[in-house]
Amino acid sequence: MSGERLWLYDTTLRDGAQTQGVDFSQADKLRIARDLDALGIDYVEGGWPGANPTDDGFFADPPELRRARLCAFGMTRRAGRSAANDPALAPLLRSKADVITLVGKTSLRQVKGALGVEGDENLAMIGDSLREAGARVPETMFDAEHFFDGWKEDAAFALACLEAALEAGARWIVLCDTNGGTLPHEIGRIVEEVMRKIPGERLGIHTHDDTENAVANSLTAVRAGVRQVQGTLNGLGERCGNANLVSLLPTLVLKMGYETGVDAEGLRRLTHLSRTFDERLNRTPDRHAAYVGASAFAHKAGLHASAVAKSPAFYEHIDPSLVGNARDVLVSGQAGRSNLLARFDEMGLDLVPDAEQTQAILAAIKEREARGWAYDGASASFELLVRREMGGVPDYFALMSFRAIDERRFNAKGERVTLSEATIKLAVGKEHFFTVAEGNGPVNALDHALRQALSTTYPSLGHMQLVDYKVRILTPEAGTAAVTRVIIESADDEGRVWQTVGVSGNIIDASYMALHDAITWKLLVDGAAAPSS
Amino acid sequence: MSGERLWLYDTTLRDGAQTQGVDFSQADKLRIARDLDALGIDYVEGGWPGANPTDDGFFADPPELRRARLCAFGMTRRAGRSAANDPALAPLLRSKADVITLVGKTSLRQVKGALGVEGDENLAMIGDSLREAGARVPETMFDAEHFFDGWKEDAAFALACLEAALEAGARWIVLCDTNGGTLPHEIGRIVEEVMRKIPGERLGIHTHDDTENAVANSLTAVRAGVRQVQGTLNGLGERCGNANLVSLLPTLVLKMGYETGVDAEGLRRLTHLSRTFDERLNRTPDRHAAYVGASAFAHKAGLHASAVAKSPAFYEHIDPSLVGNARDVLVSGQAGRSNLLARFDEMGLDLVPDAEQTQAILAAIKEREARGWAYDGASASFELLVRREMGGVPDYFALMSFRAIDERRFNAKGERVTLSEATIKLAVGKEHFFTVAEGNGPVNALDHALRQALSTTYPSLGHMQLVDYKVRILTPEAGTAAVTRVIIESADDEGRVWQTVGVSGNIIDASYMALHDAITWKLLVDGAAAPSS
Repeated sequence: MSGERLWLYDTTLRDGAQTQGVDFSQADKLRIARDLDALGIDYVEGGWPGANPTDDGFFADPPELRRARLCAFGMTRRAGRSAANDPALAPLLRSKADVITLVGKTSLRQVKGALGVEGDENLAMIGDSLREAGARVPETMFDAEHFFDGWKEDAAFALACLEAALEAGARWIVLCDTNGGTLPHEIGRIVEEVMRKIPGERLGIHTHDDTENAVANSLTAVRAGVRQVQGTLNGLGERCGNANLVSLLPTLVLKMGYETGVDAEGLRRLTHLSRTFDERLNRTPDRHAAYVGASAFAHKAGLHASAVAKSPAFYEHIDPSLVGNARDVLVSGQAGRSNLLARFDEMGLDLVPDAEQTQAILAAIKEREARGWAYDGASASFELLVRREMGGVPDYFALMSFRAIDERRFNAKGERVTLSEATIKLAVGKEHFFTVAEGNGPVNALDHALRQALSTTYPSLGHMQLVDYKVRILTPEAGTAAVTRVIIESADDEGRVWQTVGVSGNIIDASYMALHDAITWKLLVDGAAAPSS
Repeated sequence: MSGERLWLYDTTLRDGAQTQGVDFSQADKLRIARDLDALGIDYVEGGWPGANPTDDGFFADPPELRRARLCAFGMTRRAGRSAANDPALAPLLRSKADVITLVGKTSLRQVKGALGVEGDENLAMIGDSLREAGARVPETMFDAEHFFDGWKEDAAFALACLEAALEAGARWIVLCDTNGGTLPHEIGRIVEEVMRKIPGERLGIHTHDDTENAVANSLTAVRAGVRQVQGTLNGLGERCGNANLVSLLPTLVLKMGYETGVDAEGLRRLTHLSRTFDERLNRTPDRHAAYVGASAFAHKAGLHASAVAKSPAFYEHIDPSLVGNARDVLVSGQAGRSNLLARFDEMGLDLVPDAEQTQAILAAIKEREARGWAYDGASASFELLVRREMGGVPDYFALMSFRAIDERRFNAKGERVTLSEATIKLAVGKEHFFTVAEGNGPVNALDHALRQALSTTYPSLGHMQLVDYKVRILTPEAGTAAVTRVIIESADDEGRVWQTVGVSGNIIDASYMALHDAITWKLLVDGAAAPSS
């Protein structure tokens, strides 16, 4: 274990903003910068002053950071201009950042091909720009664009670019694998060669995931001696993304023993930080993400099920609580009592079934799984199944009948349209309700009619909605005919998201079962009173 | 560049089946095994005979593979039993696989802690089981579970396990990083030590992505000399997944120069294969996946926008067409004529549109993609779109109206049932048809009513059926409201399987569109005569 200090540089708000489908507001940027600061990141790159109004606004009124240094990003001056008079550099030079990070080319082929200037002018562009920046802020850095490709083409020129930046006072020289095509063994070899001239305490690494090696490339550079690591939250970034700081951080600290600005408490908030970040961007968190994914420490009932139950540590490369994650032994008829209790514990279910109830629950799970039910993606239905076996779920309502009609016809404007409409008859205690509603399909219409019928008695149902609907046709073990499994995801105004499942030979019937569970779970969580009958 | 031959081993159907939320049907398994074979994978692990009914069914009637060897997976015998009399080994020994792959422990701590047996008995378990397997099939392998952890604890014992397997005739010894916690530099060091005793031509590598290093760990082992690489399609697998063969393959072939069973033509089908696989599992393909993601070669208007326009190669680490990807999406308005022709070629479509038709086809695709259509998982609809633009699809029938009713009520026996029924009115030429049918849901009922109405004119429709139905809710670029995308898979008695897609704000409408395409495609393939009108 190393014990040496590494500096972490986050570029989520600049390179991460290049992700397709991601569009930060100024409020997002402020909040994310504060979260990164609270985590213990050393450098937070806020954006590119002058590039767009959001970044201009951000640097005009930057967040107060507790200890992270705020970095403004930009490009070295154009050819044939002085740095002080370059209009693209001006917004950087007058920004309120602590650090200016300037990117410049280091590949001679690109200097000539893309910029159309000679090598000497490129060196002057780097030196002049960093000297000018160094006169305005206490710390500057140089991002060496396409460094590894440049080195392979002409190592002497690439090195001359780095040295020009060092001589102009850059605190850090960051080696960038801009197009993401360099492999770990090449990174290792080239960094070692660079370190014959420049000490690792002045070098940083910036990688992209185009070959799925961004994390390994960063680790390789660190092992070779580089002391600054750049990356983004959840690996955001252009094309395939940047190096994922959320994966790198635990590996560097827990497995390789480096010191960073992030303490043990910060690491324990990592899972929450990663998922909150996705929620902010309206992205579904990746279940399979290293360290922080919901499945990262989950075991399906296969090869390892009983061995995991016996000694989980054998199948877990770290204690999940160190990064704020938890074990999740999946529900299955094969899993047995200890898994069942472990699962309750994880779900925060304060339930201790006696031996007889445990048998009943396991039998119910097994019987349902044989008919095609699956609880992996439907923990709310799982909770209801358990509570029902233990006698703790009231019948909030009783369905008497429903009918859904889908019709393709002409509307008043003579357009051909398809409409879905559902009627529902149900009883809440002694009261009967009969409602009708439309929807974008029979299940959606049923959902609307159902909640309309129930809303008088249970007003909180007005604050929930169906957010996803998945269908799978399968042939279960028991029975020869195909059945349909429907999984419904619901959400409410309080930020809860829950999944329920239904299985039947009829897809509408399966959907109704999942809807019924979704509504029942919501009423249970809200502590709704059961009707007197 | 190396030029040496590597062997690829796919475990999608076994270790990949451990992915949370993934549930292969037997039909899925057959299709995926054939796709892997067509790609040029050397070994296809089909599952674990005896573990569950799907795997039993698969091995009872295994797919005919062109050149890949089919592997059956299982565990070495239990302690205190003979291999020939171990009930868990029996289904493997009598399966129709070409290869038997047996997993066994190599960590002394786990042998004692989890199995409760001594080291010598573990060595005997490995040797006996592989000898017994070797008497039944021409080739056997040993998966060394937790090998890297075992090596760190007691290298001599771990090595003794490998040697026991070799002595018992195993063709390959596969070093498994079972809990995914080993880092690339450790893999490199340990593989080099193992290779002092066992040549790389007998060694394989099996890694997991728990630190986001599965790809790098595999590459490191290959560089150290290992000649078999295991992985899964799209990195499927328990927890954070297995090593992603879709990322590994282009790196090994295009960047490191290894020979594999996959030729240049196979590599060009990689993007399509990866996305089709996700569609089959009803998963959204990862836009940011290395090599094959829709964004893998896409550039947002940022730092590089104008430079990319000037010289794209600087910002692309490989030519995207080598893996069947494109600077923009595969089937896309911007992809241009050559991509379109390549796509036809792949699909076996003997079509050569003129310049004007090409423009019309590209415009139609672009317009539909903006509204949420996707053709990667629906090639029959893609073919129809192209043929329609070229004027080659007759209107076999004209729908006038339909109505579908789903009702939950009591049947004659007093049981509560849900019934779906559809009526349809349509015209074939001058003849009108009005039919009604039941189904296991509104779409199934519509399908029955539709084919009943058409069967007089087109008797071949009696030999097709709807075999799968997938629904995804999405919010497309154009428009603010969510739409539903339905993909229907159909099959006929002649072994054809085809996929069609529909998109609409109403799920039944989207389903009807996909049904209409499914029937039209079948009639087109059968060469049905269009009605005279």
